[in-house]
Amino acid sequence: MPRVTLSDVAAACGVSKATVSLVVRDSPRVSAATKVRVREAMEQLGYVYDRRAANLRAQRSMTVALVATNVRNPYFAELTMAIERVLYKRGYTLLLGYSHDDQERQTRLLEAMSEHRVDGMLLVPSYDTSGEMLQKSLGASGTPHVLVTRHVPGHQADYIGVDNRAAGQLLGDHLVRSGRRQVAFLGGPPRSTARVEREQGVRTALEAHGLALDPALSIATSADRDGGERAVELLAETGRPYDAIVCYSDVVAFGALSALRAQGVEAGREVAVAGFDDVPDAALQHPSLTTVATHPDQTGAEAAELLLRRIEEPDLQPHTVLLTPELKVRDSTRSQDGVVPHTAVPR
Amino acid sequence: MPRVTLSDVAAACGVSKATVSLVVRDSPRVSAATKVRVREAMEQLGYVYDRRAANLRAQRSMTVALVATNVRNPYFAELTMAIERVLYKRGYTLLLGYSHDDQERQTRLLEAMSEHRVDGMLLVPSYDTSGEMLQKSLGASGTPHVLVTRHVPGHQADYIGVDNRAAGQLLGDHLVRSGRRQVAFLGGPPRSTARVEREQGVRTALEAHGLALDPALSIATSADRDGGERAVELLAETGRPYDAIVCYSDVVAFGALSALRAQGVEAGREVAVAGFDDVPDAALQHPSLTTVATHPDQTGAEAAELLLRRIEEPDLQPHTVLLTPELKVRDSTRSQDGVVPHTAVPR
Repeated sequence: MPRVTLSDVAAACGVSKATVSLVVRDSPRVSAATKVRVREAMEQLGYVYDRRAANLRAQRSMTVALVATNVRNPYFAELTMAIERVLYKRGYTLLLGYSHDDQERQTRLLEAMSEHRVDGMLLVPSYDTSGEMLQKSLGASGTPHVLVTRHVPGHQADYIGVDNRAAGQLLGDHLVRSGRRQVAFLGGPPRSTARVEREQGVRTALEAHGLALDPALSIATSADRDGGERAVELLAETGRPYDAIVCYSDVVAFGALSALRAQGVEAGREVAVAGFDDVPDAALQHPSLTTVATHPDQTGAEAAELLLRRIEEPDLQPHTVLLTPELKVRDSTRSQDGVVPHTAVPR
Repeated sequence: MPRVTLSDVAAACGVSKATVSLVVRDSPRVSAATKVRVREAMEQLGYVYDRRAANLRAQRSMTVALVATNVRNPYFAELTMAIERVLYKRGYTLLLGYSHDDQERQTRLLEAMSEHRVDGMLLVPSYDTSGEMLQKSLGASGTPHVLVTRHVPGHQADYIGVDNRAAGQLLGDHLVRSGRRQVAFLGGPPRSTARVEREQGVRTALEAHGLALDPALSIATSADRDGGERAVELLAETGRPYDAIVCYSDVVAFGALSALRAQGVEAGREVAVAGFDDVPDAALQHPSLTTVATHPDQTGAEAAELLLRRIEEPDLQPHTVLLTPELKVRDSTRSQDGVVPHTAVPR
């Protein structure tokens, strides 16, 4: 008689092989009723637990790596805290590295994490990451991994982030409905998927209203406060008129608000300003900042859960999880007295 | 003839045993000239390199743990980035855990980090950490460690942080010289050494001017924005007059500024408000926030260096490194028109 396998047990009780595997590990993801049913089938068929395979599974390091770009942006602070919270609950320890959006540094970090035999990796890819590069760094070790907030074109992997196109559309549509016509898109690293998709969303919304986004008004800079200040200066140098500024992130928008103030331009009146993320300080700006909430806490928690699932079930098809963004209208895109604003003349 | 030891080599060339040990490891901290001298002495005396001891040293995991309270405060984000930067340069990987200022969680994290055989630990102790507790968590493994930004009374260990007493004195003295008399101290966890020392510093400065800090005006809350808002509400409930508020941190001060605004009190005019840290947003508040810079970048970088040195030389006496704080006077403690402000009547 051939050896009874997991597949035999699965067939006998009409569940998937994965479910039987979860029952063996006593996973909380299987109902008590199913567990009873599967265990009875195992007993009847004479299934023998494979100790060697179990030992292999037990050779986990119980560590997970997070390679992020930086933690200065409150979005990433929130994301990191959420990831750590979930990992801690599940008995995992977090290894942390910052790529500073530098691909060489990212490669070295991924290699170091592999050498430490992490069970899995969460990666916020640096903006210039290519699929080949990632394949090379991760492929050899075959470490389970999840891409967070940015994905890598051509690289098949689990990905979780906000729906950036939808987020851009929400803002673009809101601006046009508030009477704005000439929208600039400022800040953020040029080729990051998050930037490209957010701008595409804004563009789509403008086009739905018969408007266009002037390519000269799309200015990529670093994704921080300085980047916002610089982008506003570069925007003024174009000499083109604009009446709304969508920034790559709230942090970029904070810089843009400062630069506009320095130019004597009143945000929310002459020029509408908006960001992405809804970090806690967004509501506390003067004027308070219109933005799209991108849910870093939920993103981090679900990214960690997704990775732990991937570690348990390496053969699952890669998942893409997009969280729904939420528009938060505040004073920075409202005209006072409801008056449709004039087109600002840049200095 | 007895075996030639490190001490013999040290005696022969008039340097310390530690220096010889560093030469053996080719440490960059010893000059080229000294290395030549020590190596010549080794050869002459017939010193034999202890391979077993070297192997023991080589059994490093090349990982270092950081157990912090949280990373939402920009101070801790900056600190964490600096620590990671130094460790990365030296080939170490960072393991990260957040205690959320909860001692039970901290104990479990320290144990987990020990199980992962980290070579050393950087700890921002939760505010209720006792020496016995720390001894129990760290003593068994004997893991080299450095306390960062807060120390633990009765626990002998390396410690690096800003000189909190001096920081408090700078603020207290500035407030009195600006005409303030009734100073409140708001926010921060009640028994953290940082809070106790900052308040002591303010008290010392007031006393030097013949003034006192009313104990009823010292109100401990959480070290975040909410804590600042709550403390201002609790302060109003005391019914006592005050004309200045020193907050435990800038983040607490941001909450205090919001709460005062909600009460219709103008910070910088009716009531002076100041914080500690000089996080980037401090200068961008309305009014801009007077604070004392506590240098998280330098603290993090030096903490990492201190730990790496401790790992190399476990027998060194514990060091206390205090960084000098720097007063940043801004609008939140200036009275308009230079008029000495009236005492605010709390509502």
